[in-house]
Amino acid sequence: MDENYMRLALTLAEKGRGRVNPNPMVGAVIVKNGAIIGKGYHQVYGHNHAEVNAFKDAKEDTLGATLYVTLEPCSHHGKTPPCVDKIIDKKIKRVVIGALDPNPLVAGRGVKKLRDSGIVVDIGVLEKECIALNEIFMKYISTKKPFVIMKTAMSLDGKIATQYGESKWITGEASRKNVHNLRNDLMGIMVGANTVIKDNPELTCRVLGGKNPIRIILDSSLRIPLNSKVIEDKKARTIIVTTEKASKEKISIYTERGVEVVVIPSKEGKVNLEKLVETLGEMNIDSILLEGGGTLNFEALKAGIVDKIQIYIAPKFIGGEKSKTPVEGIGIKVLEEAYGVESIRVGTIGEDILIEGYMKERWKPCLQE
Amino acid sequence: MDENYMRLALTLAEKGRGRVNPNPMVGAVIVKNGAIIGKGYHQVYGHNHAEVNAFKDAKEDTLGATLYVTLEPCSHHGKTPPCVDKIIDKKIKRVVIGALDPNPLVAGRGVKKLRDSGIVVDIGVLEKECIALNEIFMKYISTKKPFVIMKTAMSLDGKIATQYGESKWITGEASRKNVHNLRNDLMGIMVGANTVIKDNPELTCRVLGGKNPIRIILDSSLRIPLNSKVIEDKKARTIIVTTEKASKEKISIYTERGVEVVVIPSKEGKVNLEKLVETLGEMNIDSILLEGGGTLNFEALKAGIVDKIQIYIAPKFIGGEKSKTPVEGIGIKVLEEAYGVESIRVGTIGEDILIEGYMKERWKPCLQE
Repeated sequence: MDENYMRLALTLAEKGRGRVNPNPMVGAVIVKNGAIIGKGYHQVYGHNHAEVNAFKDAKEDTLGATLYVTLEPCSHHGKTPPCVDKIIDKKIKRVVIGALDPNPLVAGRGVKKLRDSGIVVDIGVLEKECIALNEIFMKYISTKKPFVIMKTAMSLDGKIATQYGESKWITGEASRKNVHNLRNDLMGIMVGANTVIKDNPELTCRVLGGKNPIRIILDSSLRIPLNSKVIEDKKARTIIVTTEKASKEKISIYTERGVEVVVIPSKEGKVNLEKLVETLGEMNIDSILLEGGGTLNFEALKAGIVDKIQIYIAPKFIGGEKSKTPVEGIGIKVLEEAYGVESIRVGTIGEDILIEGYMKERWKPCLQE
Repeated sequence: MDENYMRLALTLAEKGRGRVNPNPMVGAVIVKNGAIIGKGYHQVYGHNHAEVNAFKDAKEDTLGATLYVTLEPCSHHGKTPPCVDKIIDKKIKRVVIGALDPNPLVAGRGVKKLRDSGIVVDIGVLEKECIALNEIFMKYISTKKPFVIMKTAMSLDGKIATQYGESKWITGEASRKNVHNLRNDLMGIMVGANTVIKDNPELTCRVLGGKNPIRIILDSSLRIPLNSKVIEDKKARTIIVTTEKASKEKISIYTERGVEVVVIPSKEGKVNLEKLVETLGEMNIDSILLEGGGTLNFEALKAGIVDKIQIYIAPKFIGGEKSKTPVEGIGIKVLEEAYGVESIRVGTIGEDILIEGYMKERWKPCLQE
């Protein structure tokens, strides 16, 4: 039964998507004598938390009731008073929590305060789902580094283009629409200079009413043409990431065109990606869609900056010994070193296949006490 | 309701797997007044057909009943008398057929004879499933060419080995076991000379009680070492396929070791695969598992000899600009020429992902009249 109520709370939480950032999405359900007497979710950033909305919705006295909430209730004064005080006030007997809040301002304190006041607290019901719902928030609040999704689109034989470089379009419309939704959901989009030079992409979000992500271009020696769309079209903020290899003079030529240039120390001649994600985190970028070519993708995996992957596979074979593949670079030395993916999900999208998963080596929130 | 009874007939048919070749698997169900009164399937090659077994099983008079059968009933005298005569005798009112029998000795004649005698015949219920059940039989009886399954195992980024050639093992145990089951089910297994030279594989079936497939090695100029396992171990029949480039003397060195050598005209310096499948068909090989490297796989796709594909994907990234991929060769020129796959099925197997599908350009049985 706990799972059923938590699932309902998850469904409620989801309704806040896109309207509560940078807060997490949260849902809450109050149950008394086997009946749901109140439901609520965090609707808009800065407004009531889910628990408060559930209490407001409650049709009867909550004395002795159970509260289901997807995320640990807050114990600190933020834009609203602490939810744990409200829960104690309302004489709730038991609180069932999906996931602990990794926010250092909460981090188990909510649970402690509830228990100290004699409330039974159970943690970890549908924990994975509750964490996945707020995976960006969870990582960013804990590490101050952006959550990175590496996305690629390939054929059944792992090609991202023909030998002659043709890549538009390997996958179908449904897949491409999904990617544009991702561009809408994530704060930044990252590609390498080669992609800009070769394809001159806009990197915008072509979803009705969608928002364009911040364009992050890795260009260690400032090679991208000044008439590239990402520089000229002004459709979104553009950050060009370069290294000490770029001269001050060259940098100013780019900044004069209205794009930002960030200098990151180089590592083996390339932008140091570990440093880069720290810097982007400091710039309040909580999430990045990595749409790199084979070289950048390999560097990203090697640097361990990737959290999640999405691979769109078109049901066709392209062949070609020299056709480009999604991850290249120098590759791993022995199979044992392969970059492992876990929690794989697989399905179809339009005529294509979509594989999603999480890198085994990534930041993970603490699971249930 | 028709679909439910046909599904039952399919389940029955499946019970004959491995015991009725080269006959098709067939199941039959007799229904009267909404109740199942008889069930049967083709159990052993040369014994009763499914329809006959269903009549034997019938608990009451079949006058006015409906017969569900996965494959068009036979109208010719083979090892047993024609089933259509039996159906007419038994005063069946309606026959529901899954798929027509492409066997030139049946091919719609069964249906015609039934209709001529006033029986209502409906065709095509769960037709795709009924065809898929006997896909090898269907193609081979119609074309005299083997049904070819191209199987490959790769990483999420489409690599079949590291840059240094390490490929054991990319996929997990469950995937590899599945492949050994395939080797048990299909009559032949086909690889190129390079695979034999590089890996020296046994190409046997390591399933308890399984049978080893006939090993078919493509070696246009007879390069594989005489101490290769496929030549020395005598664990299964080995056919080496070569071209006019191999001298008579060289051929006799191989045949003296107890392997068969088949000479097929070359095409662009390689074994002409279209000719090869004709020859293998004449040698009564009805099915082949193609476990080629990138070069052979591309040639096979180009020659249009592949019917079905199986791609095992391990949840890991290998990278490497020079790592081998499942389909290489010269590749296609423009995306429009990509070799399309349809009827995709996708799922997980152990820790891996399995994608199955059928080549769009392949021999297909006639669908429903």
